[in-house]
Amino acid sequence: MKIHLLDLGSLVIDRSDVLWHIDVGTPVRFPVYGVYIDHPEGKLIFDTGYDLEHVKAVLPFELPEQTQQQTLPEQLKLCGTTPDEIDFYVNSHFHFDHVGGNKHLTNATLITSKLELRSLLVPEPFERLGYSDVAWYQRGVTKVRFVEGDYELAKGLTLFTTPGHTIAHVSLLAEPEGRKPMIFAGDAAYTQETLDREIIGGFHLDAVKSIEAIRRIKEMARRHDAEIFVSHEMEAWERWKHAPDFYGA
Amino acid sequence: MKIHLLDLGSLVIDRSDVLWHIDVGTPVRFPVYGVYIDHPEGKLIFDTGYDLEHVKAVLPFELPEQTQQQTLPEQLKLCGTTPDEIDFYVNSHFHFDHVGGNKHLTNATLITSKLELRSLLVPEPFERLGYSDVAWYQRGVTKVRFVEGDYELAKGLTLFTTPGHTIAHVSLLAEPEGRKPMIFAGDAAYTQETLDREIIGGFHLDAVKSIEAIRRIKEMARRHDAEIFVSHEMEAWERWKHAPDFYGA
Repeated sequence: MKIHLLDLGSLVIDRSDVLWHIDVGTPVRFPVYGVYIDHPEGKLIFDTGYDLEHVKAVLPFELPEQTQQQTLPEQLKLCGTTPDEIDFYVNSHFHFDHVGGNKHLTNATLITSKLELRSLLVPEPFERLGYSDVAWYQRGVTKVRFVEGDYELAKGLTLFTTPGHTIAHVSLLAEPEGRKPMIFAGDAAYTQETLDREIIGGFHLDAVKSIEAIRRIKEMARRHDAEIFVSHEMEAWERWKHAPDFYGA
Repeated sequence: MKIHLLDLGSLVIDRSDVLWHIDVGTPVRFPVYGVYIDHPEGKLIFDTGYDLEHVKAVLPFELPEQTQQQTLPEQLKLCGTTPDEIDFYVNSHFHFDHVGGNKHLTNATLITSKLELRSLLVPEPFERLGYSDVAWYQRGVTKVRFVEGDYELAKGLTLFTTPGHTIAHVSLLAEPEGRKPMIFAGDAAYTQETLDREIIGGFHLDAVKSIEAIRRIKEMARRHDAEIFVSHEMEAWERWKHAPDFYGA
């Protein structure tokens, strides 16, 4: 399998939202990315970034920066494919900055949990902005396969549950050939500092479970000798290979 | 019964800690107060403020302002009593700014729940500062009566559970004669805006339960036609009667 990291633009939040209660009043710009995996069993995407028009309309204070090149279709084109050719997609969770490209994946099946979909549609009051991009989901039209708990998507590709940030957040363990396994943490770990200091983000549904999720990711990494890819850290992002380059073989 | 509000100083936190995610980077000074109730069945205190030396040592960034007059012994003296004469005390929860005067109440029995006491002693990582003042509790010395769930302390004085801010936070309904009932919300409602907008505070254990606690307080107020006394709002505080003045008869 080949694993491509797709550059889908950037946003700004407060550092106290990255690390709860730390450096209140300090804006930080962070990357938003997706993962395209070309696997012998099918083409899969994990997280699809944000819809620029949605953010401009609903959350303009997050100061979106997204060029035409930083959209899902353009990023897939770099990798030699198109949204139509994608078979499956998974969103670590349904916050607006992880689902923005879903609408392009018209032939693909969404793999998710009932709980996460229900929370998208009926959020807690403090989740309304996070779950504000609902246009991509159409009951009876969007193809959905529900899975609950840890789940092997394909050989060497395993979803594991990391709830807390949202009710049914999932992370992805990928084990490509000829390379150290990779864990895509999603928003269970925004940054390396999240992991090192075990400090949860300022956006969360369940603070206690968020701590447990950080620990589960670290434990998975130790058990599989995996490298952890955090979701929203510019410094880490700039160090990684970007599409059309890829990990694996 | 006579209900005295005791002025126990003030602290500074960010407005985003009062109203989660609102006005990040805006410091606000807020009052810290206790409630002394002289009841025919005994003398009771609800919340005891903060210990100035503790805050100076551990949380100096909350900029404590507390004169000698704004300590529990001095406030009780204003009301014609002393810490020794107090029979019972309740802390809405064990965060440092609600337990600072406990150490003076050497003859009184603490009424609390096992869960709250356990969390004080073994907090979640993000609760360490909140639960940092533990010196007042001495196992085997501090007199404790454990109660779980809603509990009538005395005629017209009822504790009711409002968890979320902490694991077993409680609020107090007081029904003095000749006056509208009073609800002391504790940190389940920092300000009137918390209640009106149903926005939880930025310090919490369980965000979902925190929302439910706000609604429970509003429902209790409606059912008992009660006035709600929020915990940390300067504007509201300045409107109320302060010790030695009192509510009730």
